[in-house]
Amino acid sequence: MPAESHVDVLVVGAGPAGVMCANALAAAGIQVKIVDQRSSKVKSGQADGIQPRTIEVLQSYGLAERLLKEGCQMHLCAFYNPGSDGVLTRTGRAPDITAPTARYPFEVLLNQGAVESIFIDSMTENGLTVDRPVVPASIELSNDSEQLADPLSYAVKVTLDHLDTPGKQEIVHARYVVGCDGAHSWMRKTLGITMDGEQTDYIWGVVDIVADTDFPDVRNRSAIHSTSGSCMIIPREGDKVRFYIQLSDSDVLDPITGRLDKNRMSPEKLLGVARKILHPYKVHEPKMYDWWTIYIIGQRVASRFSEHERIFIAGDACHTHSPKAGQGMNASMNDTHNLAWKLVQVIRGRAGISLLKTYELERRKYAQDLIEFDRKFSTLFSGKPRTKGNDDGVSHEQFLSAFQTGGGFTSGIGVHYAPSTITNGIHQQCAPHLIIGERMPPQIFVRAADARPYEIQDLLPSDTRFKLLFFVGYLTEERVRELDTLSNRLRGPSCFLQKYGYPTKDTAQSMFSIITVMSGDKEDVEFTRVPAMLRPHWSNVLLDDTDVTGRLGGGAYKRFGIDPGTVTLVIIRPDGYVGMIAPANALEDVDSYFAAFTFSRTQ
Amino acid sequence: MPAESHVDVLVVGAGPAGVMCANALAAAGIQVKIVDQRSSKVKSGQADGIQPRTIEVLQSYGLAERLLKEGCQMHLCAFYNPGSDGVLTRTGRAPDITAPTARYPFEVLLNQGAVESIFIDSMTENGLTVDRPVVPASIELSNDSEQLADPLSYAVKVTLDHLDTPGKQEIVHARYVVGCDGAHSWMRKTLGITMDGEQTDYIWGVVDIVADTDFPDVRNRSAIHSTSGSCMIIPREGDKVRFYIQLSDSDVLDPITGRLDKNRMSPEKLLGVARKILHPYKVHEPKMYDWWTIYIIGQRVASRFSEHERIFIAGDACHTHSPKAGQGMNASMNDTHNLAWKLVQVIRGRAGISLLKTYELERRKYAQDLIEFDRKFSTLFSGKPRTKGNDDGVSHEQFLSAFQTGGGFTSGIGVHYAPSTITNGIHQQCAPHLIIGERMPPQIFVRAADARPYEIQDLLPSDTRFKLLFFVGYLTEERVRELDTLSNRLRGPSCFLQKYGYPTKDTAQSMFSIITVMSGDKEDVEFTRVPAMLRPHWSNVLLDDTDVTGRLGGGAYKRFGIDPGTVTLVIIRPDGYVGMIAPANALEDVDSYFAAFTFSRTQ
Repeated sequence: MPAESHVDVLVVGAGPAGVMCANALAAAGIQVKIVDQRSSKVKSGQADGIQPRTIEVLQSYGLAERLLKEGCQMHLCAFYNPGSDGVLTRTGRAPDITAPTARYPFEVLLNQGAVESIFIDSMTENGLTVDRPVVPASIELSNDSEQLADPLSYAVKVTLDHLDTPGKQEIVHARYVVGCDGAHSWMRKTLGITMDGEQTDYIWGVVDIVADTDFPDVRNRSAIHSTSGSCMIIPREGDKVRFYIQLSDSDVLDPITGRLDKNRMSPEKLLGVARKILHPYKVHEPKMYDWWTIYIIGQRVASRFSEHERIFIAGDACHTHSPKAGQGMNASMNDTHNLAWKLVQVIRGRAGISLLKTYELERRKYAQDLIEFDRKFSTLFSGKPRTKGNDDGVSHEQFLSAFQTGGGFTSGIGVHYAPSTITNGIHQQCAPHLIIGERMPPQIFVRAADARPYEIQDLLPSDTRFKLLFFVGYLTEERVRELDTLSNRLRGPSCFLQKYGYPTKDTAQSMFSIITVMSGDKEDVEFTRVPAMLRPHWSNVLLDDTDVTGRLGGGAYKRFGIDPGTVTLVIIRPDGYVGMIAPANALEDVDSYFAAFTFSRTQ
Repeated sequence: MPAESHVDVLVVGAGPAGVMCANALAAAGIQVKIVDQRSSKVKSGQADGIQPRTIEVLQSYGLAERLLKEGCQMHLCAFYNPGSDGVLTRTGRAPDITAPTARYPFEVLLNQGAVESIFIDSMTENGLTVDRPVVPASIELSNDSEQLADPLSYAVKVTLDHLDTPGKQEIVHARYVVGCDGAHSWMRKTLGITMDGEQTDYIWGVVDIVADTDFPDVRNRSAIHSTSGSCMIIPREGDKVRFYIQLSDSDVLDPITGRLDKNRMSPEKLLGVARKILHPYKVHEPKMYDWWTIYIIGQRVASRFSEHERIFIAGDACHTHSPKAGQGMNASMNDTHNLAWKLVQVIRGRAGISLLKTYELERRKYAQDLIEFDRKFSTLFSGKPRTKGNDDGVSHEQFLSAFQTGGGFTSGIGVHYAPSTITNGIHQQCAPHLIIGERMPPQIFVRAADARPYEIQDLLPSDTRFKLLFFVGYLTEERVRELDTLSNRLRGPSCFLQKYGYPTKDTAQSMFSIITVMSGDKEDVEFTRVPAMLRPHWSNVLLDDTDVTGRLGGGAYKRFGIDPGTVTLVIIRPDGYVGMIAPANALEDVDSYFAAFTFSRTQ
């Protein structure tokens, strides 16, 4: 008889999407099981680039420090094209990241295995490890409508095979299942979800080496269009370098079957192609080849992301695209970053299943935009350069423009979630430059009590709580009286703060956290004048002023377009995105916002 | 028969000076033994403030991160005086740190036990633990002149008592001994070293609590002069606060003996005095008292810091002063930071014993300046405020001026070591604003190869190596030829780089590390043009330009006064202080600099 167990969430697959999901759930105290078919984690190669928004997300889980310690950083992108004499030459350099609000104005390069380890080690601290090598053998969703309607029922039954013990099976009854099982997802196929999109013809090879070369941009991202083909150089951790190289069909396709045949290629051959493209620069034969592969670019998105909001797919299981824009791990991790807090609220019994519908709404739209961008960018990148003999080729200006206009998107900074129950734009005019549906941008404030500078993003951790930012302006006598009135309303039993507040002993499990932002000068404000309701602790009162050096902070009211003559509430979702903004005299709209997806305590 | 052992260095005392010393030596691979009389480390109270320069020093050992994580930060200082109506009122606030080049523009507050733990945990990684409770019973310095002249002889014999096993003794033969055994130093007394200076009459009490108060500057440093006395508030880690309170003789002196009697005081009484001073602000009775003590201010400096450069004293054993300027731990740790690398070079057989003479030269001068400052500042602080009835009292302007002019000194940033064999100012004019004898100031550069911004201080770790900063300016064709010529000279057998270079397999144990600083724009410099001699690795070439955001770095040549039309060598000592500056055409002066204290490899 196979062992049976019950869990809140079963995560299938311990790649970037899976470990992001499991770690976020485990940190919130949710009972999770995570399985993976590999007997150990990836050691090298595979996806590599972590985009600025993803670094911010890792930071919100307390994991960016290690990423930044272990990874390599890419600040500049260099562009090489044939000169008027046809010889490869540098056309220019530009910042690799063009999103002006990026907190981390660079990409981090770190191999997928090391990135996974960051999450796996964090999970271990919460008592969760990956069961491997384990794969699902069958999955069964209850068709009992009552059971499906109960958010806490164990509606999914999954049978798992332990690959290292032939015949060993176990049965897991899960409230929810998340399939993060990659591009060839068993989960997706078993649920009968189709992939929409087309396969293009561009074939690429990748090889990682420690490069001994005279190429002066070997430590920058380099986009090279030569008359012998295209190549992208990406610096890696240590002294390693990755070459992405365009291949021709004859190099790698089996002439009879027409299919990709890895045996026709080798790392030596790949580097040989790179050498031709890089001529006249030299790349010496490396001591060893760290990793290599070949692939055909395909851009596809799953037709749906869930089965009855009980079984979800995420990451490569939902979208495949080229690695050219460096989105692989990023799209995947951000999928489950979006999903995890919603699952937590439902499993805690505080939100209805409908909240989970916003996952597909938000992330499928993003995936579609991603492959649209990838299609354009890949075509430009794979195209021949414009030269004397080839006036139809891709010009540097064309490529640079696509690179820079795509910057908001590729960096992840520009992601904008559409209006929904959790993204309510009715009072956008109260803070016209703080965009509802986008992530809270970085901004330094000082604490009113001690003038210590803090990055606001660091006060908005991904801890499943909604952050209530009260921008209270200048504390005139009149304003203090207004805040006393506001405090009384916030204490009222019909106010969202009380109705949906779920007070818990462990504040990390509470629904809301309050931050108050004053206007004024650090030389004379008094944090003790903020009413107790808006000042649960002295550290929660911020001031929109510079630090003692005058170099950090200040100007937030102006930057966000918030009038310090009013009191404005900004609600940040647990994933760091602006969910709603409201003036203090429209608290009933905030009541409605939470009523739309949250259960009242008294219900 | 007691056990006998041989060590390079015996450190007596595991307070801040002792653990800084032992950790630095152990990290350099020196064989160290460290003993302490306490059976476990301090848990709370005692010294608390870490000054900006000390944070920089901890950072140079890779230890600042934890300090910053665990400690509380003090950015502002508030000043309170009696108003025209005699009622206590805030006169103003000012930055707590007034040294403009401070990398960390604040003080960190962390209890002494936690600071010691940072070092002790780091030592443990190098295999070194503190032997405790152990005290020296006797010490004997060889009087054999031949033995004393040999830097590697075991010239000191120390007998140690194990306090937890009555009668258990051991004998240690040490090359060098460092006594970090506090204000009542056994080592100092045994060596017959006198303390010069006088005891003043001011009596102070200290009490640590979690304060429930309406005082609006409870999270800032607050200097309070009221008609009821003086008080200094220092915020601590967590929500704790420290009160330094002036006491009158009748409160704490035994009327018969005239000596301090701790039994006459209690934490409740201390807080009672603080309450009177703080009136009309309220401090509620705390749930518990974390720590308290009373003391009389005394300012004294040891008449000498060593016995034949074989036995040294450091920290409180050499200087005592009031805690008002927050120098306690700082002076102590900086003593042994100064001494440790010198001991390493001598024990490695690369420098003569005479190098060790610079320890007393540099640190005794500093200690004298410190008590001079402390005497002035304490007098002002302890004095009555100037009020209507007391025109001779201390005015706010007087106090603020002393506070601010003392800022360079109290922050540790302004410490300036006098000319000596290791501090050679003959070519100061090559970089007039980079002061020889002062610490290398923080300055951000980008790496030429990848435009990643780096703080220069982070490239100057306290790893016992001399850092050779070649400021090579713009890489014109002519400059590249000049650098080729310079490279050839640097390769010559009579050049300091070869004579004193001591190549080792472990680069951390080598004598020099090379950093090259170019002028130019990140958009078009090519790090590959720097000759191999000045480019041991791609990461060693820096560029004086801003990062991709334009917000960090740039302007260093101008700031330091270095002409980019010349090639200038800046030598940073292993402790981070500028040791010498020389134009590329005066390499023979650099040869002489090292010849004065370093043994040639061919000697």
